[in-house]
Amino acid sequence: MNQNYTAVLCVVALISLTGCAKDQDRMRYSQTLINSSNNVNVPDWQITSREITPDCPVNWSVRKVALAGGKQDGVDIIVIDNGKMHITICPTRGMGVLHAELGDVRLGWDSPVKETVNPNHINLQSRGGLGWLEGFNEFIVRCGLESNGHPGIDKFVNNVGDESTMELTLHGKVANIPASEVEVVVERKAPYRIHVRGRVDERMFYGPKLELWTDLSTEPGSSAFTITDTLTNRGGAEQEFELLYHINFGRPILEEGATFAATAQRVTPFNAHAAKGIDSFTQYRGPALGFVEQVYCLTPIADADGHGLAMIQNRGKDRAVTIAYATDGLPKLTLWKNTNAVEEGYVTGIEPGTGFPYNRGIERKAGRVPKLAAGASRSFSVKVQVHVGANEVKVAEGRIAAVQEGKKMVVDERAPE
Amino acid sequence: MNQNYTAVLCVVALISLTGCAKDQDRMRYSQTLINSSNNVNVPDWQITSREITPDCPVNWSVRKVALAGGKQDGVDIIVIDNGKMHITICPTRGMGVLHAELGDVRLGWDSPVKETVNPNHINLQSRGGLGWLEGFNEFIVRCGLESNGHPGIDKFVNNVGDESTMELTLHGKVANIPASEVEVVVERKAPYRIHVRGRVDERMFYGPKLELWTDLSTEPGSSAFTITDTLTNRGGAEQEFELLYHINFGRPILEEGATFAATAQRVTPFNAHAAKGIDSFTQYRGPALGFVEQVYCLTPIADADGHGLAMIQNRGKDRAVTIAYATDGLPKLTLWKNTNAVEEGYVTGIEPGTGFPYNRGIERKAGRVPKLAAGASRSFSVKVQVHVGANEVKVAEGRIAAVQEGKKMVVDERAPE
Amino acid sequence: MNQNYTAVLCVVALISLTGCAKDQDRMRYSQTLINSSNNVNVPDWQITSREITPDCPVNWSVRKVALAGGKQDGVDIIVIDNGKMHITICPTRGMGVLHAELGDVRLGWDSPVKETVNPNHINLQSRGGLGWLEGFNEFIVRCGLESNGHPGIDKFVNNVGDESTMELTLHGKVANIPASEVEVVVERKAPYRIHVRGRVDERMFYGPKLELWTDLSTEPGSSAFTITDTLTNRGGAEQEFELLYHINFGRPILEEGATFAATAQRVTPFNAHAAKGIDSFTQYRGPALGFVEQVYCLTPIADADGHGLAMIQNRGKDRAVTIAYATDGLPKLTLWKNTNAVEEGYVTGIEPGTGFPYNRGIERKAGRVPKLAAGASRSFSVKVQVHVGANEVKVAEGRIAAVQEGKKMVVDERAPE
Repeated sequence: MNQNYTAVLCVVALISLTGCAKDQDRMRYSQTLINSSNNVNVPDWQITSREITPDCPVNWSVRKVALAGGKQDGVDIIVIDNGKMHITICPTRGMGVLHAELGDVRLGWDSPVKETVNPNHINLQSRGGLGWLEGFNEFIVRCGLESNGHPGIDKFVNNVGDESTMELTLHGKVANIPASEVEVVVERKAPYRIHVRGRVDERMFYGPKLELWTDLSTEPGSSAFTITDTLTNRGGAEQEFELLYHINFGRPILEEGATFAATAQRVTPFNAHAAKGIDSFTQYRGPALGFVEQVYCLTPIADADGHGLAMIQNRGKDRAVTIAYATDGLPKLTLWKNTNAVEEGYVTGIEPGTGFPYNRGIERKAGRVPKLAAGASRSFSVKVQVHVGANEVKVAEGRIAAVQEGKKMVVDERAPE
Repeated sequence: MNQNYTAVLCVVALISLTGCAKDQDRMRYSQTLINSSNNVNVPDWQITSREITPDCPVNWSVRKVALAGGKQDGVDIIVIDNGKMHITICPTRGMGVLHAELGDVRLGWDSPVKETVNPNHINLQSRGGLGWLEGFNEFIVRCGLESNGHPGIDKFVNNVGDESTMELTLHGKVANIPASEVEVVVERKAPYRIHVRGRVDERMFYGPKLELWTDLSTEPGSSAFTITDTLTNRGGAEQEFELLYHINFGRPILEEGATFAATAQRVTPFNAHAAKGIDSFTQYRGPALGFVEQVYCLTPIADADGHGLAMIQNRGKDRAVTIAYATDGLPKLTLWKNTNAVEEGYVTGIEPGTGFPYNRGIERKAGRVPKLAAGASRSFSVKVQVHVGANEVKVAEGRIAAVQEGKKMVVDERAPE
Repeated sequence: MNQNYTAVLCVVALISLTGCAKDQDRMRYSQTLINSSNNVNVPDWQITSREITPDCPVNWSVRKVALAGGKQDGVDIIVIDNGKMHITICPTRGMGVLHAELGDVRLGWDSPVKETVNPNHINLQSRGGLGWLEGFNEFIVRCGLESNGHPGIDKFVNNVGDESTMELTLHGKVANIPASEVEVVVERKAPYRIHVRGRVDERMFYGPKLELWTDLSTEPGSSAFTITDTLTNRGGAEQEFELLYHINFGRPILEEGATFAATAQRVTPFNAHAAKGIDSFTQYRGPALGFVEQVYCLTPIADADGHGLAMIQNRGKDRAVTIAYATDGLPKLTLWKNTNAVEEGYVTGIEPGTGFPYNRGIERKAGRVPKLAAGASRSFSVKVQVHVGANEVKVAEGRIAAVQEGKKMVVDERAPE
């Protein structure tokens, strides 16, 4: 009887897997990997270009692996190998990008947090609202959705309709919410774009009903990938939100003499401590024990396509990474410099966002907390591109200079009061 | 060697399964599905009437399924199909009843929370003690056991024997505690009653040692089920407790023009906001964005069997659900009206309890926090019955009217100070 | 394709298992059971003396079992049977020792907490920082590493480099952190010592980077086991830490008339309540409902090997357990008497530590919070020995008396102000 039932379940599972076959037509391949509505979480799984796009000249693959051991038991990861670059995504941690590699260029950093921590082990309220830091080691981690930025008290409407206060926690919840739905989509014709899509719900009763569909895509053989996210307010009332892409670099691209560049109208130090370093805010130092983070708040200039540009390049000027972000959705850019000792986390963050990482209360006063009407959506786009060799780096640098040309970047010597 | 050991484990598992055989005599069938003491959690499993009660004229079944994906990875559910009604119970969430269906009558509601959330993902202290709302979507959810109701500060005795204070969290812990023991019991003779029983422990050192045995049972072909719970104080000292059955209805039975009825001596608005609606507290409105919850506190009149009666019926007066609760254990009834927009959660709760959902400190002062002596037990009974068709609904309504007949229901215009 | 991939994974798994073969030489057997870096968590597993040490005259075994059901789903345990004593270790709960048995001597106690609770279900901040008590039932539980002792406010350095305050939680985090790496090592030559080793990381960004390697070892046929732990500061800066071994005894060795003894220069009551019992602090009472814990703070005298000695013996003086701890790492000893009713937890703790279980703020002022320089390590050693029969007990008692001989134990009548 148990066996019969298992057989029934297997059939159900097969149906749900092959049920995706309707999409697997000539145009595109599509495979659901996780769908909590249908009770699906496909175990270790892989596809390769040979099966899906036999005509594609580049060998690519996508695989899903379940992690085991320590704090990462039960965590799923998805690895895209586009033939040139590996990109590792974590559905269990809000579809964050754990790390990516292209030859000797490494997108990511060495956090003191060594495992891909299951959100089960994270208490965001720990340490005065800094519990988020117990899982923080991603290359790209989304911060939001109901709130982002520094912990501390802010107002909200409670279950009896009263305005009340709550302790916001650092960078919000979304990075520690497992995706409820994940699919892989591959276009069967050139350029054979590969998508990993995931739905992360930040929903509760008497609270936000925010649905984030993430889409990370890349082309076989490309040295870039694009994130295109869509946030929808599934609630019946207008809803505030905040969203910031915390994109983090460590060694080797971050090093003494590495530099930052961005298209910007204005840059303002986050606080008095950052103001001390404003004159050299584009220069990176080597690891120095006791370095206290310095944060700079930039307002971008968009290029003809509506993208703000930011770049980090190494000292030798032969390795760089560009971030292009659509400024309609992400009108602000934060630069986080944390060139502390390697063991403490030698890292810089280049962070397009809806605002800056002040506590939401401060952001609201500054008019930087957007709202979504009931049922409304907004899209966000971030493209990450790797540049290898002096020529490519020079071209990328020139692209930023061209956008900035003739436009002044106001540099504030002081932090806002 | 590993294989040998696995074989040994399998034998152990078989023994533990067949060990239940002693109960599987002519009188009743019994199967343990979960038992943490014996290290048992039977995976996907099913029984049917054909095997267990071949003489039963109604085809019934019980099955256990493990959920997967998103926040519900690792959650178990048990589905009773009594041949007429489906009832879905969640051992992982404190033996709550997720939903039930009888034809077009649906017991449950559309919460903004879409998954059956693993308690691993719930932080009850989140949002100023409202974290419970991140998992709230059940038809019947128990609230308690050490405390129920509104969050906020109340006193307790700490680990050095001092009276101290703690932040109580909304509706307590029990709905987010996985059952430590679950069994299915079926009577082999007519009326072939089917029971799903579970033990939920709210136990800690220097704190409550409360053990709740839940029992949900139904008869094949019936349009009703009964919950009979037994709460035992396993501690050495007297122990306060609170218990409330939060029974929630949404569309379609809840609609503009749906009505509530109950046998009651008295009804009092929970607060000034509820007082504004006291004149129409038995009438339901359609969904309205921005509606703030209105709560009414009733003291029941029991029928000859000792049951308070409450009912919700639709506008067409041809669909209704009655709740009959034993007033010796559950001497109070709370009506929660939350006819907010559908996207926000259009829902009403009919909630028999040991008290009202004020913070425990308020309840204690009002004499509504009962105690259990060391080793003592108390039972609680709630019967849910579905009525289909104008005749059945009229009979049910008549039953309530008969109990109330000649007895006044005092209606307070104001909330308690 | 899935099958191919599974095959690949199996090969990977085999390699990672047999990869340990290099150590499996003539000198010692070594097996990795958990390694999150390599994505390894070996399921149910066992070795026996016949395979590993065929010449060993004592039959021993080590096995790993995954628990199921209730709050212990997903918890791993490792059971050492050294031929005389069973010792059960829990990797999922920070390598704590759940219990041990030698004939009728039981190392452990009856906690009101009945399951081996998965840390997923623990919220350390619950109940004003007493959430640790919802999982507390071990024989030996380590308390630390960033802090130990009473909850309450203490200072720390936050993410912007400011001195801030946080609410410490009772006894710190380490007991609720799953081990990231676990291995079993057996010496192939006499005395065939068996080791279970585990690495527990208490690491975060902007916080401690403490790595604890635990090692519990025993010899086949022995009535003792030894814990030798090494704590390393993997951060770049000096780091405070606290570590206490909370070693707990209940019935039957704890009983009316059981006694405590220790080599000590001084004993001081923890608070005014403990001071009331100072005259009989070495005497145990039977279970008494409402008994409030009494705690005594001892400064040990070390024997010639550098070990402080402590012992509990039963009333009949024919069963005893000795604890020998290296005082260079663990310069303090706490005696916790909690002879409350059996249902509340009738238990005593004998607790070698780096300090006493006051809040860290108090400990710091008293100079009892040690620091580790960047990269530095410190070792801690605790040996637990069981004595059966009047002779063995007398010898053990004599050993303590010999160390104490001629040295005064100052007994403070009052607690520190």
